[in-house]
Amino acid sequence: MEFSGFDFDLAPTRLAQQIQFVLEIDKLKGVLRQTLLTDASRRENSAEHSWHLALMAIALAEYAPAPIDLSRVVQMVLLHDLVEIDAGDTFAFDMQANQDKANREQAAADRLFGLLPPDLGQTLRSCWEEFEAAKTRDAQFAHALDRLQPFLHNLQTEGGTWKQHGVTRDRVLWRMQAVQQGAPALWPLVEGLIQQAVSAGYLLPGTDNQP
Amino acid sequence: MEFSGFDFDLAPTRLAQQIQFVLEIDKLKGVLRQTLLTDASRRENSAEHSWHLALMAIALAEYAPAPIDLSRVVQMVLLHDLVEIDAGDTFAFDMQANQDKANREQAAADRLFGLLPPDLGQTLRSCWEEFEAAKTRDAQFAHALDRLQPFLHNLQTEGGTWKQHGVTRDRVLWRMQAVQQGAPALWPLVEGLIQQAVSAGYLLPGTDNQP
Repeated sequence: MEFSGFDFDLAPTRLAQQIQFVLEIDKLKGVLRQTLLTDASRRENSAEHSWHLALMAIALAEYAPAPIDLSRVVQMVLLHDLVEIDAGDTFAFDMQANQDKANREQAAADRLFGLLPPDLGQTLRSCWEEFEAAKTRDAQFAHALDRLQPFLHNLQTEGGTWKQHGVTRDRVLWRMQAVQQGAPALWPLVEGLIQQAVSAGYLLPGTDNQP
Repeated sequence: MEFSGFDFDLAPTRLAQQIQFVLEIDKLKGVLRQTLLTDASRRENSAEHSWHLALMAIALAEYAPAPIDLSRVVQMVLLHDLVEIDAGDTFAFDMQANQDKANREQAAADRLFGLLPPDLGQTLRSCWEEFEAAKTRDAQFAHALDRLQPFLHNLQTEGGTWKQHGVTRDRVLWRMQAVQQGAPALWPLVEGLIQQAVSAGYLLPGTDNQP
């Protein structure tokens, strides 16, 4: 196995696979999200977004509804978007692209976690599957953070992607249910901020016809 | 406490401090390192770099010389560069800027970890201090990763910052001692790759007068 002309046979196969994975995931830094940085200077990429969530998990762990396995939540948010390397980022409010998202992401998971030695690949994939299923407390807390972060960015950027796409309060309330579920102690804050976002004109007050 | 005109009194002080920290650390995404992404499209920022190290810790944990506390290593690499928000990134091979780096970074740590409630701020600061001291096995493994990642990027980008700055093999061998110490099982690979990098003309073969 080699990369860029470098002879990788000097590493045992297992290590070569791990290095290949390490190099491959660099591509997540090139996957752009809709969300702007808080200074509105540019769109955020999915790698730095994942980093942000991991530190949020550490800083906000006490708001999980019951004890969580923090290291598992951190691992989950670190890898939750890896599949976007192949499948791309799907904008939350783009209903069409969200329809075949699951299939595209499963294929991406096959390829990306398949770069690793099988034991390690399976461990990381299970963590990703747990996030996707959103059934465990750890996964639900991870989802809450994944919603809270762009929400805060939209507030900081005077409506950011909400204004660009004419998003309504009801849509955000619906989307932020993940916070209500995964970190209910943060819900009063979120609800209050949504109200302020409507008052500030960052969110449309009405409803819309997409759930 | 408020941000961007949003009334943050609706959050208890403790939570308001945590959110303030979460918003502040977004600035690390704007701190550029010398290292290029593996596709050479642009310079890497310190937030996405930290994310990369965290996943490297997970993928390469088995190469630590003895059992490590992986979740601590992950936390360490996630926050190891936060001080750069104030202190900037100091290029490894810039000897002048490295002289007052420690002072600038201590002041940055005071301010940044000081945004958090004291208990949490102290916990995260201890983790950062442990990284800086590089005495524990966890910290040494974290340092090994912090050296290995730009090393791999320099190989992938045909010499990247090495070629730009005329870096020699000896300088890289010296710098990569952190790998020899923190992840000795990876040393044969690194040594072999350095040899190949010299052959490929990415590194100068000679020595230079800065240790």
